[in-house]
Amino acid sequence: MYLPAAPHLRLLRLLRDEGPVSRAELGDRLELSRPRLLAEVARLVAAELIVEAGMAASRGGRRSTLVELHPRLRFAAVDMGATSIDVEITNGRLEPLAAYREPVDIRSGPKAILQRVHDLLAKAKVEGVYEKLDGVGVGVPGPVSFRDGVPVSPPIMPGWDRYPVRELLTREYGCPAVVDNDVNIMAIGERHGGVAHSVDDFLFVKIGTGVGCGIHLAGGVFRGVDGCAGDIGHIQVETNGPVCTCGNTGCLEALFGGAALARDALAAARSGESPALAARLGDGRKATVTARDVADGAAEGDITCIRLIRDGGRRVGSVLATLVSFANPSMIVIGGGLAQLGHVLLAEIRSVVYRRSLPLATGNLPVVLSELGNRAGVTGAAVLASDAVFEQAS
Amino acid sequence: MYLPAAPHLRLLRLLRDEGPVSRAELGDRLELSRPRLLAEVARLVAAELIVEAGMAASRGGRRSTLVELHPRLRFAAVDMGATSIDVEITNGRLEPLAAYREPVDIRSGPKAILQRVHDLLAKAKVEGVYEKLDGVGVGVPGPVSFRDGVPVSPPIMPGWDRYPVRELLTREYGCPAVVDNDVNIMAIGERHGGVAHSVDDFLFVKIGTGVGCGIHLAGGVFRGVDGCAGDIGHIQVETNGPVCTCGNTGCLEALFGGAALARDALAAARSGESPALAARLGDGRKATVTARDVADGAAEGDITCIRLIRDGGRRVGSVLATLVSFANPSMIVIGGGLAQLGHVLLAEIRSVVYRRSLPLATGNLPVVLSELGNRAGVTGAAVLASDAVFEQAS
Repeated sequence: MYLPAAPHLRLLRLLRDEGPVSRAELGDRLELSRPRLLAEVARLVAAELIVEAGMAASRGGRRSTLVELHPRLRFAAVDMGATSIDVEITNGRLEPLAAYREPVDIRSGPKAILQRVHDLLAKAKVEGVYEKLDGVGVGVPGPVSFRDGVPVSPPIMPGWDRYPVRELLTREYGCPAVVDNDVNIMAIGERHGGVAHSVDDFLFVKIGTGVGCGIHLAGGVFRGVDGCAGDIGHIQVETNGPVCTCGNTGCLEALFGGAALARDALAAARSGESPALAARLGDGRKATVTARDVADGAAEGDITCIRLIRDGGRRVGSVLATLVSFANPSMIVIGGGLAQLGHVLLAEIRSVVYRRSLPLATGNLPVVLSELGNRAGVTGAAVLASDAVFEQAS
Repeated sequence: MYLPAAPHLRLLRLLRDEGPVSRAELGDRLELSRPRLLAEVARLVAAELIVEAGMAASRGGRRSTLVELHPRLRFAAVDMGATSIDVEITNGRLEPLAAYREPVDIRSGPKAILQRVHDLLAKAKVEGVYEKLDGVGVGVPGPVSFRDGVPVSPPIMPGWDRYPVRELLTREYGCPAVVDNDVNIMAIGERHGGVAHSVDDFLFVKIGTGVGCGIHLAGGVFRGVDGCAGDIGHIQVETNGPVCTCGNTGCLEALFGGAALARDALAAARSGESPALAARLGDGRKATVTARDVADGAAEGDITCIRLIRDGGRRVGSVLATLVSFANPSMIVIGGGLAQLGHVLLAEIRSVVYRRSLPLATGNLPVVLSELGNRAGVTGAAVLASDAVFEQAS
């Protein structure tokens, strides 16, 4: 069973998530005696994690000193995708002070990609966003050994297998670093500041180039024995479906996801089956149609675009119905690039999940879109970075 | 994250699982100072949960006093199935002192079934197995709100919805009682004394009349938000399959499980498609063939029997492949009545799971048969009962 976290960790998280709090209120909220609280505060002030910041408004008696996170705290949050890097520098409250986004190809390998990350962080330093980083959180698009801080056999990341990402970052920046799977950090982000705020047991389903699932249970993200829990993109949904990059046939990812949708949409545009997509492909100078084009086509009433989205939603829904029967979560959040397919996709997923799972498990099961969009990943990476720093303050 | 359990709980569990231990060793194992340990021991002796029992063999210095669970501790373990009740009375170490098994029909409702349980427990008392019960653990064949100690909308248990099972047992026997789903207690039993001994993250798949899954994660059984996690019998495995008792079509349970296998085997016997089953049906005086008949037919090389088992294994395997991708467990245990189909079933399940899941998740994933067989349930119920009693000793 889960026991509550240590007092210093709860204190620092409370200041991170709610801002300045008076000492009197801190004592009440953390159920700490006054001497115990004062000792914790003094210790964390000495560690330069918090500062005392003036007087709180009176609660009727003596006015109490306000406590807040040290204003110089800085976390770097990095979300590596298959085709882009997002970097944010945040303060202690995880408010973004600077954000950078760059197209990259994750297949160019760890040295090149980490160099890009270093360049972006160096740029932020030059721009005066931080003097020194206190923690770094990184998400990568593949399975990760969270304990070891390394990617493990990541299918779309050649050269990254067991590459010591965490160790190199810790050494480079002289602060705690954390490495996790990209979908896990999105789930953490959505729980911190998005639609799953304060929801304990939920699934975050990312439908991007590939498909993955972040599993949030009471105590945090559930990673499984080898760190590959939630790897749902290679679940078979059609016995004789198309061949997948993994070598099997009929995987969810081979049928729906950014790559599969682009393939099917391009075919529908070229054959003229979809007038809306054919128009967007135009005179042939444009080589691809995008998920955005499909969403727009559907909004215009193009039947093929609607069918493409509904077919995909049905397939995602059938996998999610299975996972709902298995895990009985209290919410499903849909994120990733294809979340922009919006209501049509969501309606189809809901319809399959509600029809195919037992009433008890779906009686009160919201299936909703991500609120944070492409900021979910960096938000979660910042949460992980701050937790790592706060935990070390014991 | 999981923090260690309280010292008294670890102490009592250690004595339960390993038998008498010297005070010196207890201090070492629990990492308690000598005064703290002596205080805990004194308190638990006063609570009549443990006794001091002579001297341990010397470890080189002064001989240390042995401590063991109170010899008069008695737990009642009850495993209610769809068609039978198993009851065991155990001592503190969970060794069975008496065991009873009775055919019942769970559909006869809570009053009649609980009366049968009371009768069996009264019989044990008359036989001198116990004077007073210290804890009662019960498994029922349906979803349970573990917190409330009541079944919740159990499909095959009419009249049991929110029936106050735990409350009635607590009142009747004047001791802590625990109610859980039957598959969950089997998982707990298998972890305590079976093939999953000391394995933290595993799935226990029961293939009985119906199909269900106990999910064991680091801290214990994972029950989901509504207590129905692991309800995998109603996952759709064939779009146009037979109609299930739940109203949907193509559920795993409608295609394989005790009821489905009996139906298919009887059809094969009657049509003469399976000579082995036809011979067992004989001249028509026998109305059914059983899973045992199918297992025996397969052992004799009857092709239809082998096909029935392999078809079932393939369907179970396809669901498990999905769950392996999702949860990345470290072991899968197959139990329930149909586990007697043995190697043919297991081989087919393994083949599908290994072929359909990513190498990282299956690189070291044993798929094995339950060791405890139909004692898994009562074993787990006794573990739950003892844990409830030990926790209350704080």
